[in-house]
Amino acid sequence: MDNYPNHLNERGEVHMVDVGSKAITERMARAQGVLLASPSICQAVQEGRIPKGDVLAVSRVAGIMAAKRTGEWIPLCHPLPLTATEIVITVQTDRFVVESTVRTTAPTGVEMEALTAVSASLLTLYDMLKAMDRTMVITDILLLEKDGGRSGHFIREGVSHVENRSPDQ
Amino acid sequence: MDNYPNHLNERGEVHMVDVGSKAITERMARAQGVLLASPSICQAVQEGRIPKGDVLAVSRVAGIMAAKRTGEWIPLCHPLPLTATEIVITVQTDRFVVESTVRTTAPTGVEMEALTAVSASLLTLYDMLKAMDRTMVITDILLLEKDGGRSGHFIREGVSHVENRSPDQ
Amino acid sequence: MDNYPNHLNERGEVHMVDVGSKAITERMARAQGVLLASPSICQAVQEGRIPKGDVLAVSRVAGIMAAKRTGEWIPLCHPLPLTATEIVITVQTDRFVVESTVRTTAPTGVEMEALTAVSASLLTLYDMLKAMDRTMVITDILLLEKDGGRSGHFIREGVSHVENRSPDQ
Amino acid sequence: MDNYPNHLNERGEVHMVDVGSKAITERMARAQGVLLASPSICQAVQEGRIPKGDVLAVSRVAGIMAAKRTGEWIPLCHPLPLTATEIVITVQTDRFVVESTVRTTAPTGVEMEALTAVSASLLTLYDMLKAMDRTMVITDILLLEKDGGRSGHFIREGVSHVENRSPDQ
Amino acid sequence: MDNYPNHLNERGEVHMVDVGSKAITERMARAQGVLLASPSICQAVQEGRIPKGDVLAVSRVAGIMAAKRTGEWIPLCHPLPLTATEIVITVQTDRFVVESTVRTTAPTGVEMEALTAVSASLLTLYDMLKAMDRTMVITDILLLEKDGGRSGHFIREGVSHVENRSPDQ
Amino acid sequence: MDNYPNHLNERGEVHMVDVGSKAITERMARAQGVLLASPSICQAVQEGRIPKGDVLAVSRVAGIMAAKRTGEWIPLCHPLPLTATEIVITVQTDRFVVESTVRTTAPTGVEMEALTAVSASLLTLYDMLKAMDRTMVITDILLLEKDGGRSGHFIREGVSHVENRSPDQ
Repeated sequence: MDNYPNHLNERGEVHMVDVGSKAITERMARAQGVLLASPSICQAVQEGRIPKGDVLAVSRVAGIMAAKRTGEWIPLCHPLPLTATEIVITVQTDRFVVESTVRTTAPTGVEMEALTAVSASLLTLYDMLKAMDRTMVITDILLLEKDGGRSGHFIREGVSHVENRSPDQ
Repeated sequence: MDNYPNHLNERGEVHMVDVGSKAITERMARAQGVLLASPSICQAVQEGRIPKGDVLAVSRVAGIMAAKRTGEWIPLCHPLPLTATEIVITVQTDRFVVESTVRTTAPTGVEMEALTAVSASLLTLYDMLKAMDRTMVITDILLLEKDGGRSGHFIREGVSHVENRSPDQ
Repeated sequence: MDNYPNHLNERGEVHMVDVGSKAITERMARAQGVLLASPSICQAVQEGRIPKGDVLAVSRVAGIMAAKRTGEWIPLCHPLPLTATEIVITVQTDRFVVESTVRTTAPTGVEMEALTAVSASLLTLYDMLKAMDRTMVITDILLLEKDGGRSGHFIREGVSHVENRSPDQ
Repeated sequence: MDNYPNHLNERGEVHMVDVGSKAITERMARAQGVLLASPSICQAVQEGRIPKGDVLAVSRVAGIMAAKRTGEWIPLCHPLPLTATEIVITVQTDRFVVESTVRTTAPTGVEMEALTAVSASLLTLYDMLKAMDRTMVITDILLLEKDGGRSGHFIREGVSHVENRSPDQ
Repeated sequence: MDNYPNHLNERGEVHMVDVGSKAITERMARAQGVLLASPSICQAVQEGRIPKGDVLAVSRVAGIMAAKRTGEWIPLCHPLPLTATEIVITVQTDRFVVESTVRTTAPTGVEMEALTAVSASLLTLYDMLKAMDRTMVITDILLLEKDGGRSGHFIREGVSHVENRSPDQ
Repeated sequence: MDNYPNHLNERGEVHMVDVGSKAITERMARAQGVLLASPSICQAVQEGRIPKGDVLAVSRVAGIMAAKRTGEWIPLCHPLPLTATEIVITVQTDRFVVESTVRTTAPTGVEMEALTAVSASLLTLYDMLKAMDRTMVITDILLLEKDGGRSGHFIREGVSHVENRSPDQ
């Protein structure tokens, strides 16, 4: 790992990093995030009392569409021509878990695209359910896996460092 | 609280809720989110070894710009003419805390705008620091306060339900 | 009806028409459009051999999102704060029929928003089904109803030509 | 032709199809669409009583600009770097006919870009002329030709139904 | 005039200024800008050897479309619902002069919208002519008039410096 | 230099030029622009009475973000995947000078991207300072250098006119 953000130039000013000399390779990233919701909502979705079809489809589409436009939301991201994007949502007892997989063939990776897809997907779920629960929390947005770049294959081990940290505040 | 998402119509299909008959009032929302990062990064920023000027400014701007375009990220959000947006970032021992305040005069609230601003601001911080730490986590994105709508003034008490929940997985 | 396009000024040059002195009223528009597809596709969707949940949900969302951004597609449209948008899709023997309803409170109407929603919804259906049928046709995009403006209430009489036309090919 | 939409994964959920392993080749698509309008409008344009310069130029530009952003309107489209876009509009007795040609060098085709260009161009014409005729109809949006992909060269035979149909109303 | 930028808060950090308590009034702004080009190009356009129809129409449309999206290009601008936008281009011996007029009914003014429209219009002219002259210069983008806000009516006195400057090169 | 705009086809109508057969090479462009402001503002920034950190950072980010979306501002520009973007701002006695450098690997150049970045950066500076000086002027936006295309290396000789012109007002 470097010890200086490469988005800052020698004057400490932001720039869009030059990736012109990096190899164009196949790259992928997988990310995850969680929407903590009241068990009654999760159960209503699981049991079909809230029709989940459109709710999950709209959340998936929001993630896919946001991934394509990551360079508009994140100021210093390079715009990339994505070759694939997939969003999988699972409903658990007290949470919705969103996982994204994004692929490209480009000189830089799609870590931010995967994370942006997850964020948009979670915010969209939140939006559709917020009239039912105003205390939902979006949490644990993190990189699960990354491949294809100079730094090799990264897989997050057991997501354990999340567990060990104390909750905020 | 309702027990059915108002973004679904009677057929269980998504629509953009009709707010045409709601009162146009001054509304505000305040949200928060956290980027957990390695203490060495946080310290480097606090002590100025990583020049924080541009890093924090870019993150704030990303939040402000995303708030204005919330209706493009979140499929069923109404586009709203925001009257004010503010992003405050504080650097702590092992985390960056982002807080947004958004205001409008409109027939519907700005909860999603405040949460979207926080998300974009956190993703932008993550992007600028990711070459230094690949295990950062975005977490605890939640609504702090909301005012101006039919449902009255909402303030989140002690953010305590976040603390009590066990970490993901 | 006028006999000169109001989008042209006295020099015959396009401009964005001044609506600053028009009354701000509640306005609505309803539009419709058709995707002619092979009966085998329509039947497969109707009988569930093609899972229609996500297909129709994504098409509806595309229509809703496009309606909000009509001013970006259509160069001389005024950007408007929509208060409601609804898309209904019905599957018939040889076609998908999309109907949109859009509402605003503004000094100008939402006819273009309703038509743009229908167009995006139909293009999205086409996109998802095109690997199965390359001879689909998008057709009969038209205004069904309009209300709230200076020119009174408009309802299109007998859209029977939609029913009577044989499917393309 | 396949008998299952490739935009659905094995769970019947939408995704952005993986094109990462497809060959990067030169691809083109040509599409067409029609705006049926009252003969008096068409004649006024043909005879110059309505100055057609800006009207047709704005419609062409709207088509070109929409083609570039197809991935924003159509949720599951891959964003593509277009290498060429051309829009040709002809005014006939009772209709405007718009034809688009789009090219790229990419792992997937530009059929949707060509159709989106035609749609935006037609909607823009409609917008500029709607104060003069509220019963216009957008119709017969279809693919004329496609080349460069795995499935070979496609040309639509005899689009004669466009000529033979009587104008709407 | 103030002596501190109101886009900075008390900590010297950027924010989107709160305009929620300002009066909603009719506002207008008029701006201007110049593209200095070689006399041979200007003459060719004036004499019709370069067909000016589409060139000027496309430049006007680019200005109108940019005005509507000013809040996306200028990070701290409030998004505003414009009620009118007009672009006038005149071709002189050695320059193209673009003038914009923008109107809204809103709690803040449209100075930036008028200047953004002029900028986009000039850049678009430059783009279309650049293969013929690589030494063109965009210059003298300035506010001509502003009305409707708290600070009263502003008219710029004698913009004669535009006329007197010799063309670049 | 050509003597006919290549953005016009043989009918004098605009199109997006076909670059499909041009070589994909590394390309760069460097552009510059100036904001003439009152010496008291420039001095206040230089001496830190106006905190320049966020002001300059936001202006730089606006330029970088606009460069990425040049194809949305400028109707006939090809969308390009930029590999690098840098904005440098210097504060002088009576002006802010913005210089951009943009790089890509593509079949067409980034001249418009560099000029668009400069324009957005200058407009953003203007926006943040306009409450303090309503007579600022944006001027001298021009191409400094261009490389990588068919037409070889271009460097603008002696941009001395920038230095010699007296500030506006």
